[in-house]
Amino acid sequence: MRWDGWGERPGDGSFPEAGLRMLGDELGLSGRRTPPVPLDEVGVAQSRLPDAARAALTEVVGADRVDDSREARIRHSAGRSYPDLIRLRAGDAAVAPDAVVSPADHDEVAEVLEACADQRVAVVPFGGGTSVVGGVEPLHDGFDSVIALDLRRLDSVSVDRTSLTATLGAGLTGPEAEARLQSRGLTLGHFPQSFEFATIGGYVATRSAGQASTGYGRIDELVVGVRASTPAGDIETKAVGGTAAGPQLRELLVGSEGVLGVITEATLKVRPLPRERRYEGWSFKSFAAGAEAFRSMEQAHAAPDVARLSDEEETRLAMAMAGSGSAAERAGKAYLKLRGHERGCIAIVGWEGEPDDVERRRSLTRSVLREHGGVSLGSRPGQSWQRSRYEGPYQRDVLLDHDVMVETLETSTTWTDLLMLWGRVGDALRMSLGERGTPALVGAHISHLYPHGASLYFTFLARRETGAEIEQWRAAKGAACDAIIAAGGTITHHHAIGRDHAPWMTDEVGELGVEVIRAAKRRLDPAGIMNPGKLLPDEEG
Amino acid sequence: MRWDGWGERPGDGSFPEAGLRMLGDELGLSGRRTPPVPLDEVGVAQSRLPDAARAALTEVVGADRVDDSREARIRHSAGRSYPDLIRLRAGDAAVAPDAVVSPADHDEVAEVLEACADQRVAVVPFGGGTSVVGGVEPLHDGFDSVIALDLRRLDSVSVDRTSLTATLGAGLTGPEAEARLQSRGLTLGHFPQSFEFATIGGYVATRSAGQASTGYGRIDELVVGVRASTPAGDIETKAVGGTAAGPQLRELLVGSEGVLGVITEATLKVRPLPRERRYEGWSFKSFAAGAEAFRSMEQAHAAPDVARLSDEEETRLAMAMAGSGSAAERAGKAYLKLRGHERGCIAIVGWEGEPDDVERRRSLTRSVLREHGGVSLGSRPGQSWQRSRYEGPYQRDVLLDHDVMVETLETSTTWTDLLMLWGRVGDALRMSLGERGTPALVGAHISHLYPHGASLYFTFLARRETGAEIEQWRAAKGAACDAIIAAGGTITHHHAIGRDHAPWMTDEVGELGVEVIRAAKRRLDPAGIMNPGKLLPDEEG
Repeated sequence: MRWDGWGERPGDGSFPEAGLRMLGDELGLSGRRTPPVPLDEVGVAQSRLPDAARAALTEVVGADRVDDSREARIRHSAGRSYPDLIRLRAGDAAVAPDAVVSPADHDEVAEVLEACADQRVAVVPFGGGTSVVGGVEPLHDGFDSVIALDLRRLDSVSVDRTSLTATLGAGLTGPEAEARLQSRGLTLGHFPQSFEFATIGGYVATRSAGQASTGYGRIDELVVGVRASTPAGDIETKAVGGTAAGPQLRELLVGSEGVLGVITEATLKVRPLPRERRYEGWSFKSFAAGAEAFRSMEQAHAAPDVARLSDEEETRLAMAMAGSGSAAERAGKAYLKLRGHERGCIAIVGWEGEPDDVERRRSLTRSVLREHGGVSLGSRPGQSWQRSRYEGPYQRDVLLDHDVMVETLETSTTWTDLLMLWGRVGDALRMSLGERGTPALVGAHISHLYPHGASLYFTFLARRETGAEIEQWRAAKGAACDAIIAAGGTITHHHAIGRDHAPWMTDEVGELGVEVIRAAKRRLDPAGIMNPGKLLPDEEG
Repeated sequence: MRWDGWGERPGDGSFPEAGLRMLGDELGLSGRRTPPVPLDEVGVAQSRLPDAARAALTEVVGADRVDDSREARIRHSAGRSYPDLIRLRAGDAAVAPDAVVSPADHDEVAEVLEACADQRVAVVPFGGGTSVVGGVEPLHDGFDSVIALDLRRLDSVSVDRTSLTATLGAGLTGPEAEARLQSRGLTLGHFPQSFEFATIGGYVATRSAGQASTGYGRIDELVVGVRASTPAGDIETKAVGGTAAGPQLRELLVGSEGVLGVITEATLKVRPLPRERRYEGWSFKSFAAGAEAFRSMEQAHAAPDVARLSDEEETRLAMAMAGSGSAAERAGKAYLKLRGHERGCIAIVGWEGEPDDVERRRSLTRSVLREHGGVSLGSRPGQSWQRSRYEGPYQRDVLLDHDVMVETLETSTTWTDLLMLWGRVGDALRMSLGERGTPALVGAHISHLYPHGASLYFTFLARRETGAEIEQWRAAKGAACDAIIAAGGTITHHHAIGRDHAPWMTDEVGELGVEVIRAAKRRLDPAGIMNPGKLLPDEEG
């Protein structure tokens, strides 16, 4: 991945000119360009890894797997959150790890952790480096030195076709895992927006959800068993069917974000590779009407595998940016106006599987959507979504070049509270950014359905406050998080806690809940070396 | 419930005469009758609850809710496992709690726990008292006194129709919860064999699975959020949709069996009450053939809500016991013989829901079963199963009266290992009991399907070893548990750990896994008063 953004190299991303012009008008941009500094201008301190620690680590993984080169350290100094990118693009890699250590397998991970505990070196597990919540920032947090533990070499694959499970190494990226599975006619079916770069270990450690997770299930629903290495030793949970054997340690390790240990492999449910995939667009008069249709569909067991519903503002922005001005487009808009949908909302629904199963389920979904006032827009919006499904982070780089603040955040709640929470979080973002003289555009969509609720994914854009980007971001993010908590939502549906959400962890699970996680951490990581400063709020007093 | 068995009163259970004769022959019974002693002959020690503790508890719940009457103590002295019943029926209630305390609500539970921690009184949470793994045995375990905390008064119900959830008090029994839900047109759909007496809190604390859990999901899949009172304070997990907010404390509390605290209420997914229910019987040439059909059905998303497949021995015993000798029955047997199924296996499959949905799903299931050699036996076996679905524990009482040892145990594993495990556990039971001169009948069935595996439920019967019933049981149980672990299965699929499986907990989750649960317990229950001697193995050294 390029060191300062998304994709393999700069220029991978593009953004429609019409969209940039519209954002210029609506956000009050000056036309200023804000490119990243060149790599050789990035500031990074000398590595502070003590010789004894380096020797101990070298003994485990070999000299060339303890990399303290400037570039390796810069590349492991941040994830891909907005503040990460602001910092990197400004040439600030002051928090770079003191070295990047790349173990070959589970046993080497265990030995590295042992060496680091002995030497009091903090350890930040690093997969694809795609965290958008500060999850891989190498905080020293009281330790003299910190290493990034690069897990990309943990790439084993073992498939049980009879039980439809695969045991996958933590370091496999989404495309690598899919390629290995698809060559056997199988799929994991897990496609978060970070799919191209994120890893299996990252998915599991952060409880990620993918674009088709309404159908395939979130990663936490796909995990059957995990194997983890902790400073106190190994934990492996049984990869069998259901169990009533007490509290589930699997659910303590899944989502542990590297603070309890390192997930080295996971056994996951897989499925036969779908022979048919259909995605299509629908329109609803309003977000409220669409949400009600989605609720009915999900509760009637008629949900598709992909189910996304944009609110009015996200729909307006998407239409404006994608607008081709063609005759077909004008005809489509005229038709929607006729149906009273001219300020409506777009939904994308998609089914994957055997052709006859897809057809059967599609007909079920469609009849519920129609009953609830949905208007089919055919397959073109579906194809367009499919083509652009991973584009968001590439486009972000272009917007960052053009003086735009762009950030996303997400939550989930019950169907009962969904519209209330949606309104309050949107208000919080608009108000907190408006007060700073940088009025915001805020769009949202539902991206994942549960019988009892749904997720909400917000995107907000504003003019960057030059030199105060982090303060501006902190104000908006804090207001949104407070609004989510006040409205009863979860602080994160699939981005995880990391550093950014840690201050809200007490609101999320209560003081005693935080204490229980701390107790588990103290048992597994007595020296506190594992990913310090993440997941848990700062200790009081 | 009757104090010495299942059902409201003695005589509720019955057993076909033909079945008893057959067991007499096959198990080598002498015809000896072994009835329970009368209630007034049961031995129970004086309550040792100190005056200070009694005063503190009385202050919380009132004098009449601190019951140390002989009968109340006997009724809370055991669950409904085979050794529990052997002990009770012999008149041994030596382990009776020193008092039965019945708080009114969550706040009173919290105050009772506080008082007990202050007074160093052990606490055994008690719902329906239906544990079959020694989960409610009031072990003193180093404490001078122990109370049973009867949760039956925690009977609140609050329904969110929009989100299809219900927040239910821990003390509601299955029928009470269903009555409250069904009056609103809803159902929880959770029907374990203990349904008539077990409670919501018990289901959640033990991760129970019901007879329709293949369709509705195990209780752990139905729980959205829980509220618990622990000696260190309250923990409440957010009852929202999916979340990526770190390790899931909900999954630490669900299945915690009273050792971390008391689950006082749970928010559970509910569904519209099905308007249609269809259950039917199928025959397969062999257990292996039926298991393969069930795997294909589940993995093709064609599974019914109820899916049970008896092995050859369970089928033989069931047919022999249910045999009416009618012409219809003889014709049916002749037909199966013609199809090569004369030593086959019976399956019960059932669908619940809206009539058209049931019809659609039924047709899907049936086509997969037929492709795999299944022969439909029509609705009669389904109706017969439905009538007798809760009869097992009633029949056990009759068998106990007739000198029979009867016990069940269960596990789950992957599809890959299912038949291997089935063979080894059956062998372990037959061998361990055969060696004692009490040859066993061992039947099993698959009762719950997962895409990656299934549960196996074993029933075994043998002649009781007079005066050595517990040793006999321990030999068989231990051999079966060792075989389960050696074959890679989980030590329990839905009965929980309790006292009986605690010695295998280290095999199940590893030493470090046990230590993590202990660390959570120490944080939530520093004095160790909560259900001592359960779930966790004895500490070494």
